[in-house]
Amino acid sequence: MTARSVRESGPPRTAAAPELVDSGFALENADAPFLHRGLNLADMGHVLDLARRGLVPDDARQAVLALLLEADATPPEDFPYDPELGEPYNSREAYFVSRIGDAAGWLHAGRPRREAVRIALRLHIRRQIVELISDTARFGLAAVDRAEEHAETVMPDQTYLQHAQPSTFGHYVLSFVYSAVRDAERLLGELDWVDASPGGAGCVNGTRLLTDREFIASTLGFSDVIEHTRDAMWQVDGLIAVLATSSSLLTTFCKLAEDLEIWSSSEFDYVDLDDGYTRASVLMPQKRNPYALSIIRGASGVLIGRLAGFLAVTKSPSARSDNLIYAYGEVPRALDLAVRIARLSAGVVRTLRVNKDRLAEEVRGGYTQATDLAEYLVQSCDVDYRTAYLIVGRTVRAASRAGVRGVAITGEMIDEAAVEHRGTPLGVAGRDLSAVLDPWQIVLSRDARGGASPDALARMTTSLRTRLTGLAASAADRLAGYDTAEDALLAAARQGSGPHPSGPHRSGGAR
Amino acid sequence: MTARSVRESGPPRTAAAPELVDSGFALENADAPFLHRGLNLADMGHVLDLARRGLVPDDARQAVLALLLEADATPPEDFPYDPELGEPYNSREAYFVSRIGDAAGWLHAGRPRREAVRIALRLHIRRQIVELISDTARFGLAAVDRAEEHAETVMPDQTYLQHAQPSTFGHYVLSFVYSAVRDAERLLGELDWVDASPGGAGCVNGTRLLTDREFIASTLGFSDVIEHTRDAMWQVDGLIAVLATSSSLLTTFCKLAEDLEIWSSSEFDYVDLDDGYTRASVLMPQKRNPYALSIIRGASGVLIGRLAGFLAVTKSPSARSDNLIYAYGEVPRALDLAVRIARLSAGVVRTLRVNKDRLAEEVRGGYTQATDLAEYLVQSCDVDYRTAYLIVGRTVRAASRAGVRGVAITGEMIDEAAVEHRGTPLGVAGRDLSAVLDPWQIVLSRDARGGASPDALARMTTSLRTRLTGLAASAADRLAGYDTAEDALLAAARQGSGPHPSGPHRSGGAR
Amino acid sequence: MTARSVRESGPPRTAAAPELVDSGFALENADAPFLHRGLNLADMGHVLDLARRGLVPDDARQAVLALLLEADATPPEDFPYDPELGEPYNSREAYFVSRIGDAAGWLHAGRPRREAVRIALRLHIRRQIVELISDTARFGLAAVDRAEEHAETVMPDQTYLQHAQPSTFGHYVLSFVYSAVRDAERLLGELDWVDASPGGAGCVNGTRLLTDREFIASTLGFSDVIEHTRDAMWQVDGLIAVLATSSSLLTTFCKLAEDLEIWSSSEFDYVDLDDGYTRASVLMPQKRNPYALSIIRGASGVLIGRLAGFLAVTKSPSARSDNLIYAYGEVPRALDLAVRIARLSAGVVRTLRVNKDRLAEEVRGGYTQATDLAEYLVQSCDVDYRTAYLIVGRTVRAASRAGVRGVAITGEMIDEAAVEHRGTPLGVAGRDLSAVLDPWQIVLSRDARGGASPDALARMTTSLRTRLTGLAASAADRLAGYDTAEDALLAAARQGSGPHPSGPHRSGGAR
Amino acid sequence: MTARSVRESGPPRTAAAPELVDSGFALENADAPFLHRGLNLADMGHVLDLARRGLVPDDARQAVLALLLEADATPPEDFPYDPELGEPYNSREAYFVSRIGDAAGWLHAGRPRREAVRIALRLHIRRQIVELISDTARFGLAAVDRAEEHAETVMPDQTYLQHAQPSTFGHYVLSFVYSAVRDAERLLGELDWVDASPGGAGCVNGTRLLTDREFIASTLGFSDVIEHTRDAMWQVDGLIAVLATSSSLLTTFCKLAEDLEIWSSSEFDYVDLDDGYTRASVLMPQKRNPYALSIIRGASGVLIGRLAGFLAVTKSPSARSDNLIYAYGEVPRALDLAVRIARLSAGVVRTLRVNKDRLAEEVRGGYTQATDLAEYLVQSCDVDYRTAYLIVGRTVRAASRAGVRGVAITGEMIDEAAVEHRGTPLGVAGRDLSAVLDPWQIVLSRDARGGASPDALARMTTSLRTRLTGLAASAADRLAGYDTAEDALLAAARQGSGPHPSGPHRSGGAR
Repeated sequence: MTARSVRESGPPRTAAAPELVDSGFALENADAPFLHRGLNLADMGHVLDLARRGLVPDDARQAVLALLLEADATPPEDFPYDPELGEPYNSREAYFVSRIGDAAGWLHAGRPRREAVRIALRLHIRRQIVELISDTARFGLAAVDRAEEHAETVMPDQTYLQHAQPSTFGHYVLSFVYSAVRDAERLLGELDWVDASPGGAGCVNGTRLLTDREFIASTLGFSDVIEHTRDAMWQVDGLIAVLATSSSLLTTFCKLAEDLEIWSSSEFDYVDLDDGYTRASVLMPQKRNPYALSIIRGASGVLIGRLAGFLAVTKSPSARSDNLIYAYGEVPRALDLAVRIARLSAGVVRTLRVNKDRLAEEVRGGYTQATDLAEYLVQSCDVDYRTAYLIVGRTVRAASRAGVRGVAITGEMIDEAAVEHRGTPLGVAGRDLSAVLDPWQIVLSRDARGGASPDALARMTTSLRTRLTGLAASAADRLAGYDTAEDALLAAARQGSGPHPSGPHRSGGAR
Repeated sequence: MTARSVRESGPPRTAAAPELVDSGFALENADAPFLHRGLNLADMGHVLDLARRGLVPDDARQAVLALLLEADATPPEDFPYDPELGEPYNSREAYFVSRIGDAAGWLHAGRPRREAVRIALRLHIRRQIVELISDTARFGLAAVDRAEEHAETVMPDQTYLQHAQPSTFGHYVLSFVYSAVRDAERLLGELDWVDASPGGAGCVNGTRLLTDREFIASTLGFSDVIEHTRDAMWQVDGLIAVLATSSSLLTTFCKLAEDLEIWSSSEFDYVDLDDGYTRASVLMPQKRNPYALSIIRGASGVLIGRLAGFLAVTKSPSARSDNLIYAYGEVPRALDLAVRIARLSAGVVRTLRVNKDRLAEEVRGGYTQATDLAEYLVQSCDVDYRTAYLIVGRTVRAASRAGVRGVAITGEMIDEAAVEHRGTPLGVAGRDLSAVLDPWQIVLSRDARGGASPDALARMTTSLRTRLTGLAASAADRLAGYDTAEDALLAAARQGSGPHPSGPHRSGGAR
Repeated sequence: MTARSVRESGPPRTAAAPELVDSGFALENADAPFLHRGLNLADMGHVLDLARRGLVPDDARQAVLALLLEADATPPEDFPYDPELGEPYNSREAYFVSRIGDAAGWLHAGRPRREAVRIALRLHIRRQIVELISDTARFGLAAVDRAEEHAETVMPDQTYLQHAQPSTFGHYVLSFVYSAVRDAERLLGELDWVDASPGGAGCVNGTRLLTDREFIASTLGFSDVIEHTRDAMWQVDGLIAVLATSSSLLTTFCKLAEDLEIWSSSEFDYVDLDDGYTRASVLMPQKRNPYALSIIRGASGVLIGRLAGFLAVTKSPSARSDNLIYAYGEVPRALDLAVRIARLSAGVVRTLRVNKDRLAEEVRGGYTQATDLAEYLVQSCDVDYRTAYLIVGRTVRAASRAGVRGVAITGEMIDEAAVEHRGTPLGVAGRDLSAVLDPWQIVLSRDARGGASPDALARMTTSLRTRLTGLAASAADRLAGYDTAEDALLAAARQGSGPHPSGPHRSGGAR
Repeated sequence: MTARSVRESGPPRTAAAPELVDSGFALENADAPFLHRGLNLADMGHVLDLARRGLVPDDARQAVLALLLEADATPPEDFPYDPELGEPYNSREAYFVSRIGDAAGWLHAGRPRREAVRIALRLHIRRQIVELISDTARFGLAAVDRAEEHAETVMPDQTYLQHAQPSTFGHYVLSFVYSAVRDAERLLGELDWVDASPGGAGCVNGTRLLTDREFIASTLGFSDVIEHTRDAMWQVDGLIAVLATSSSLLTTFCKLAEDLEIWSSSEFDYVDLDDGYTRASVLMPQKRNPYALSIIRGASGVLIGRLAGFLAVTKSPSARSDNLIYAYGEVPRALDLAVRIARLSAGVVRTLRVNKDRLAEEVRGGYTQATDLAEYLVQSCDVDYRTAYLIVGRTVRAASRAGVRGVAITGEMIDEAAVEHRGTPLGVAGRDLSAVLDPWQIVLSRDARGGASPDALARMTTSLRTRLTGLAASAADRLAGYDTAEDALLAAARQGSGPHPSGPHRSGGAR
């Protein structure tokens, strides 16, 4: 044990090495704008909590709260964050000590740095998540509008980018709303994780100074307290879930963007972006590039990496700081990108020009009715589907070689193919196949749940509109709750910064 | 348009190229074991659905159902899947045609290949997810048991792997249960996504043959129908969520495993794995390696990649097959790995030996009481926290240099440090500090919500036990529902494979 | 120290827990097929190394070598690997002991399990990497052939999928060869890492038994010895590089595949896959889906995940087994996928039908000559490029509204636009612009290095062919070297398995 | 074709939508600081290239060059980049037009925006890569110094964090240098990719204006021209390789950092970080947290995500802008992080305190000599290794239970274990085993290539020092070349901005 006893305990005695200032401290200070407001609010709440227990002298309370209100009124870019003095929290502390001396020291009673920063992160991202939900709802509503507008815009739906069956542009565009709504609902669920307070967790298992964790929670607008104190300090599962859901959401936007980029080609010419979402080439005078779609698609890839990277960071032992130090910047930046992309996607969809004539031309020019034709043969000619399929396959092949469009296929052609395939005709020569072959009739036949017929579509747009407005309302409610709590806290801090506070500003208890 | 009109439509006329057989078809057939059961069930349900509408002749119905029952009784490794004949679905079809001729052709009426396979995937992973929830609950219950057993096992909790504050092993181990429970609850939520039926979606917007999508849904034990047919065919958000949550869950196990690997070192000697989770070296006779922990930690990394890779696959245009072709193998394999790791983690925790004496020795030998000492000075000496902190910091540094343990720090030493720091003592010389410095007294003081005191811990273990048994029960309920539905379907198929079925086996409607 | 002294050292005394058998041991045994051959060769080499130093008795040497030759002649699927007995190496050992008793024990003298397995991994992947290089060269040569065939196939090259400038299909397809070649050359460079021997590293810093590490290196066909023994055991940088390069290579194939999938649409109709690379729909009779392209694109996403996952696994402390345990399966499987995709991509390119008429039609129908027109105005009208660009932009916009193709733009139209833009004409009315506007003339003008003119293209195909055949030759040389070494080793083992070996089979020394 | 002919070609006619300004343009302008210098240099080179061909009037040339020199002298944060005006290149153009009118329009003759930005990216990252190589060499040299200093510092090397065999701290720390050097050498190789010029590629296949691509290449200090013009515009493989190698390098630093964090615990107490790399807790007065190690480990995870994200971005069709738009910020930021971490790692290693006494105590207190003991029995007692291993295993187990250290094991204890194992002793009772059991003697025996003996270590440090100084010199040479070229370009631009340039500043030709 002799060897061990020479190990010195206690804080470092020398300044940080320049390489550490340029890496850790500089990186953390670059994230200060995300945490600035939340640190001030967390500190105000903490001082009020100490004050209501009589743990801080009146003059210190006044000085600290006044200084915190001043800091909160200072934009982060004007606040003297300085990597030479440590990460943002230590940098603030050094500045506070320079302003009010030892009184600033009350801030740390019963609470580690990490608790303040954990709270600040939650206060920041709760607003970002609300924004992302709102903007996703806005995207959804824009798409629902366009779906209703194009409920009768017939088009060839595709798989493998090959014409599959007749559908409508309305049905197509609506398909993206569902996955977006589900991800927005997942985000709303994750807000419960974010809206829980780690306050009062102390270093790891609480503190002897603060026995009631509800005050700080309700003061900051949290709706719950995270029970286990060690979990409260170190949990990251909600951040992973938020990043994963945001990535998932962006892949939805990416799929739509890639489709639209293909459809904006002069060869497809199905759609055209509004000029405001395009960009000129500086070299090629004929070009109008769908730049917005590139931005959406690339952002989707970037977010996949943010998620993978954050997971790799958290693949670590427990209670190690890197788990969350990197979260302070990575998570807000990722959410910020997601919000911008949700807005951009909404704008693209809202203003998209849809070339109905081209869509109609393509559906008329191809063979998307082949499946319905085969099903008709099954229903009317007493053959199994595989046989019908093979006969129609031959018919279509022959038609395409002969330049005959799908709508012009005749019973004779089918019988000819049947003879080739199995030696006998099906007996459809002479029949009027126009209803079977007409793309619009086919669309109308898709009236089961979720189908492309205008009625089925209307049932979906109605119900989606309800879900989307519900999502937007939930998001707005959350936001109003945050505003209310933060306003009340600022008011209490203002009162507490004066000489005669009337006592604890709220009896509290987490909602 | 002349140029275009020579483009031939219709199925390919030649066999698949060898490179395609060796890549796409071979890869998909390697996933057949995951889909085998589900394909058979999906096909049975489809035939029964066609039959109840009178769309399939009796003899074809009997032949197909009998063959499907035979296939279902055949283990996938004995079924003649053959990449030369295409992916598993086509390979099955070719075999079925070889067995019963054109009657096999009824299987495809009104339904694309992808619908059957999408269903099969869901039928497979719903059971895997249920297993993962159950096994996570089992892990949680094992950890709760150990937490109760070690509610009074004092230890130095750590941050940065440096001693922080006195806590208990019970409090420590319980912290992993919370994130595991939350992820299990997320998985339970995602089961709603998995338990929804894509049946009846046709190629993309339904089919003229099947107007009621509830029958197939309830027959297969789905609890809901996915409304929008295109969404039904192509949605992947739930798979992303399941993979993300599984990755998150495995990072929880990874953190615990890495902690235990460190604590299993002879230097720490805090814990010891049961022999059954270790492995000998073939070279070094003294070694007993904590192999189980390596397996857990590596699996966590692997799963991060599975998630990132799946997201990259889905970064694609919409309605492209690669989105799901790769899901058929990637998702089941990832879940299988997650289940094995959850079980292994439960076993490790259940059998772990905890070295109480070493933990006690370490907490007695260090300075984890320093924070409480500083807080005591704040409370009793009218100083701010920062001042108290700096004085205690000096005291500890001096004590460590002098080989004095934290429990033996005296008021004289503190006063000496105070004089050094600010010129005057605090006046604590002569006081009895034993209660402030005693680690066990400190633990007892952590009685606020979520703290380390035995009472606070007991409140948590009680409530966690309820959540965990609830999770296990929900998982068991789901499983029972799947079993019931699948048994009923098999019974109906058996009846339908005979000459006189009594009619549709269930009037149905999704639950 | 009392507490620590009760810690028992030595191998585990009980059997592995079932959860460990089902996770770690089962997972490792699933990778046995990749390691089987290499383990046998590594063991043979080790026994010969011990024998030449007189460290193993003759009868044991004979027995072990005979058994190893038998194992090597047994396909891995027939070898009794059994997770109950540990990972593959231990499982083999248990089988060997059951066959020849203690004589099997000589295998472990001076060498840990991990050394044998590390070697086996290298022996396996060196062949896979050679294959990947060869198949990439084959892809490149196929593309070079097609480029030469289509050196005069004019087409509109695109950015953002919008027509940009006239080019040729030959120039287009050649662009993919360059990145593929560079990645193949990177792989060849990484073979130097793979072809270095970790043999003789002992546990971590060598062994007292073997003082010469060259014998085992040259016996196994390694071209170098990894100097530092700890690095030799634990290095993973080369595996990361190989996975990263393979991922990069697959993104090249993915880009091409996605382009071709778009161009295979009936709207573009630029190209058509050979039937052998397509797949029928089982529902839609008109369809011929470009299935091979889906396989290529999805594989690219999968490989991104394999790389990210492997990096996450290696984000760990040093000298921890998970770093490489997971590599044994992940790396060979990833390389296997890459090889299959390289072959598939080569087949797709080799057999692709290119629709020259459609390409010509599109280039004639658009405005890809706009840039050249603006440059012509700069050269002949004394205006800056921005002014010329703006005038041509107006001209093109007016032409497109009037339905006038780019080739039919007149000087009068340009002067009209110039007047609109700046009040005065450029004075080009009446000029013959046909040479400026003709796509083929534009292509011919691209004769600088790397341009699209047939001459520039020919210079590139010639030099690429040289690089590609060089790559193929290097790969073949490596392969021949491996074969030679392995044959010699087997011969030596056969000799050593008899009663009178003539001595060490090779005086050796790494090449 | 009627439908298509109404599609308007030509640049957008309206301003960018606010959502596009807030996403794409804002994101790209945030990257302007990385590109600012390079854009100015690329533009200067282009104007000089046009000028030497007589393509730009003298006054325009003077005006543009003067303005570019002014821009280059303006720090990016003071340059009026404005997202409202587009991405940085367009924003610059708008500003230039506002300053010198149409003369600014010459900049775009024969060159798209993307060419300038592609060049600017390369000019930026070539310096970052050189820095990363230099700093990695500095890390390596620091580690080599420490290895020499600790060539005789005996320690227990570990696998699974369990004592394995006696080694030295010097041997341990040197193992990290090898993988770092290899990655630095890979980076040096990738510089050849970066140092090739995409200049003169035009939009995609060159331009009619510039037939010689060597001038711009040599003017900007590139050492080569990228042949194929489409490849030149769109290649990303080198960026992937650079990110992958940087990630690999950071996992090396991460492994070391995690080891050191474990060894900095009071339980291990093997090493201690210099105070300058630690951080105090604001709550816990006894703590000095190894903050630098958290920063290193987290950064490694972040970089894994940057690579995965970039690969996901490039999983896209060809010639799409997102491939590189996102590279402009992602790659420089990733490299910047890597450079900071390399420096930090070097500082940590250079200043690390190594606790020799503790290391010696641990190696003396354990059983790391067990392998050598078993090998000794093989050599001297005519038993196979497995038998020797099992006997030593029993011996060690008994010794650990009895509290006997490895160095004190006797022949009698071994014989007793042998009797237990196989009924007969080995006959070692009474032998002097001190040389076999002494850790330092064991280290001395590791004198084969790469072993831990001081002589073997000295051979390695000597050769590594040569490689490291070579790397540093190569990096310095590259940097000097860049400086020389850029200085010459600025001088030529200054001359060209005056009325009487003496002609092209360099006859050029890429080196």
